[in-house]
Amino acid sequence: YRLASIEEADFAEGAFDVVISSLALHYVADYEGMVRRVSRWLRPGGDFVFSAEHPVFTAQGPQQWHRGADGRIAHFPVDRYFEEGARRAVFLGQEMTKHHRTLETYARALLENGFALTGLAEPRPSEAMLRDDPGMADELRRPMMLILSAKKL
Amino acid sequence: YRLASIEEADFAEGAFDVVISSLALHYVADYEGMVRRVSRWLRPGGDFVFSAEHPVFTAQGPQQWHRGADGRIAHFPVDRYFEEGARRAVFLGQEMTKHHRTLETYARALLENGFALTGLAEPRPSEAMLRDDPGMADELRRPMMLILSAKKL
Repeated sequence: YRLASIEEADFAEGAFDVVISSLALHYVADYEGMVRRVSRWLRPGGDFVFSAEHPVFTAQGPQQWHRGADGRIAHFPVDRYFEEGARRAVFLGQEMTKHHRTLETYARALLENGFALTGLAEPRPSEAMLRDDPGMADELRRPMMLILSAKKL
Repeated sequence: YRLASIEEADFAEGAFDVVISSLALHYVADYEGMVRRVSRWLRPGGDFVFSAEHPVFTAQGPQQWHRGADGRIAHFPVDRYFEEGARRAVFLGQEMTKHHRTLETYARALLENGFALTGLAEPRPSEAMLRDDPGMADELRRPMMLILSAKKL
């Protein structure tokens, strides 16, 4: 194991068959630079798979439902979609900085840095989660996560 | 020229080098069936490029900005994102049916029917459009269009 920030980690060219990142890249300001480095670390044919918060979820900033006068969820607000950059949001009671980028940016950096796009998923609650937690049904109203998979050419 | 609905048009296997569709597929209910047929019509190495209304734009239904008490645009509402299917919306003064599907569905049908994904774009107003039409700046707040390009393997 090596403990380091994504920005500072460095490895040899072609060192890995697979690079996986779980819900971390929306905290990274320089996404394109990170994709270039992952591309270098992967051998040809290697896979890069990552999840990140969905651009719909990061666009406006606060990541809060819009509620009607009765306090119930009305819809989820999208704003500033093409204004990429830092956003302040409260996560688990703590204010922090996330980085919004468009879906086009997420996909294009991969295609322009030696990857083929092999998968795009928008995870949603499973049947079991919907049955066990009534509040989970709200997560069918907005996409919160994005998973992309790509193969180094 | 042949004039026909997308659903009824039929061509020989491998008949085309390129298939292009401009802002039409969000009116088609059976997207997966359409992708299968386009895949059959294309020769290996051929390209399929299409634009459609963005899933963010089609999700809720009415396609109207949410406005504050002062009448000004507050944000764009997203709702029912994972509930794919028909939506009623008013377009150029006429009520009509559009079909919402997720981004995952748009991409996966291509990947599962013999295509490689070669491009994903979210068009935005050009500098000239922003200069000539002040209202155009609102279109930086939400993604309205999606363009996907794919290559038949």
